[in-house]
Amino acid sequence: MTKTGVLNDAPEANRAVEIFRAAAEIIHVKGFHATSISEIADAVRLTKAGLYYYIKGKEDLLYAIMSYGMDLLERHVVAPARLEAKPEDRLRSIVASHARLITNDGRAITILVNELAGLTEEHRRQMMTRQRSYFEFIRDTLEALRSKGRLNEVDTTVAAFSLLGTVLWVSRWYRPGGRLSAEQVVEEIVRLTLGGLVAPAPTEATDEERA
Amino acid sequence: MTKTGVLNDAPEANRAVEIFRAAAEIIHVKGFHATSISEIADAVRLTKAGLYYYIKGKEDLLYAIMSYGMDLLERHVVAPARLEAKPEDRLRSIVASHARLITNDGRAITILVNELAGLTEEHRRQMMTRQRSYFEFIRDTLEALRSKGRLNEVDTTVAAFSLLGTVLWVSRWYRPGGRLSAEQVVEEIVRLTLGGLVAPAPTEATDEERA
Repeated sequence: MTKTGVLNDAPEANRAVEIFRAAAEIIHVKGFHATSISEIADAVRLTKAGLYYYIKGKEDLLYAIMSYGMDLLERHVVAPARLEAKPEDRLRSIVASHARLITNDGRAITILVNELAGLTEEHRRQMMTRQRSYFEFIRDTLEALRSKGRLNEVDTTVAAFSLLGTVLWVSRWYRPGGRLSAEQVVEEIVRLTLGGLVAPAPTEATDEERA
Repeated sequence: MTKTGVLNDAPEANRAVEIFRAAAEIIHVKGFHATSISEIADAVRLTKAGLYYYIKGKEDLLYAIMSYGMDLLERHVVAPARLEAKPEDRLRSIVASHARLITNDGRAITILVNELAGLTEEHRRQMMTRQRSYFEFIRDTLEALRSKGRLNEVDTTVAAFSLLGTVLWVSRWYRPGGRLSAEQVVEEIVRLTLGGLVAPAPTEATDEERA
């Protein structure tokens, strides 16, 4: 699923992931342009030359981090959600696993996924295509919900973007070790988003009601 | 309400606002560090020296834009919402006027409000205090709703952040001239967020039901 060749080789892949995480944290705090390759090399205990074994340069690093972020999303969010046959279960799976990915360790990487301005034209186009495909997966799920009569009266495009906004915003405010555990945050996000979108299932009249 | 002295003088204030808008658009597209003072000066038809009449430097410009963004928010969102006595009306007012501000002309400025990394320590602290106060205004509104029994079973901190995420995300996806008008987007955002938060008012039994 990964697009970055270096990730195909296991031990090097782990080292690359370690570099992506460390770099994402620094870039998130300092901003992409203010971060130097030397700072990233220092953070992962490599010489600049050593770092250049993994990446060609700063733009390439940003692209590799974003690609890795999209890989994580496809593996941990999209793939499991596709296994859910019912649209309401699929929607719950998307929201829960995406929020979980962010609270677990995807915070800085998630924020960087929107640093499209730092990419070359070609890389930006590729990244936008992948992001668009995720957006359409969410919207299709909402459309499937609608066709079952289980979606509230909302525009599915606005609803898909709003759901994404809520979930991605978790990366901006959630801090591990705070009042709520990661799993509590995930539960609240699921309840909030699904509460506003999913219409109650048409209830079968019970025996009591029929009486 | 404004913190930037230059905004107190009307004609200069208009020119300053024009500079903030143009600069916000460029910074949004290129990123803060990649944008030069010369580019901003060109965009507003000023010499660099002319631009320095309005701003002391790049960091000062970023801070001035963010302060202006917070001024807009306080004037067009917080102030009118404070006039609403009922918490459900106050919440609707916050969401509608904030979404409207973004769809109208606050897009780039809204995005920049999160560029805290580009600020000096002191400016960052000031900006975070203002942002925090807006966040607390939203959360207090949700708490007021709860005390009237009109809030669904949600954590008000998570709900306030999620509402902010949904509204702020509009700046990332809304494009004027698209399928939905600005006002339709505002309506959808209000329906989505309030639908997930506000519990129906306890219904008075009607004569028919009583019979």
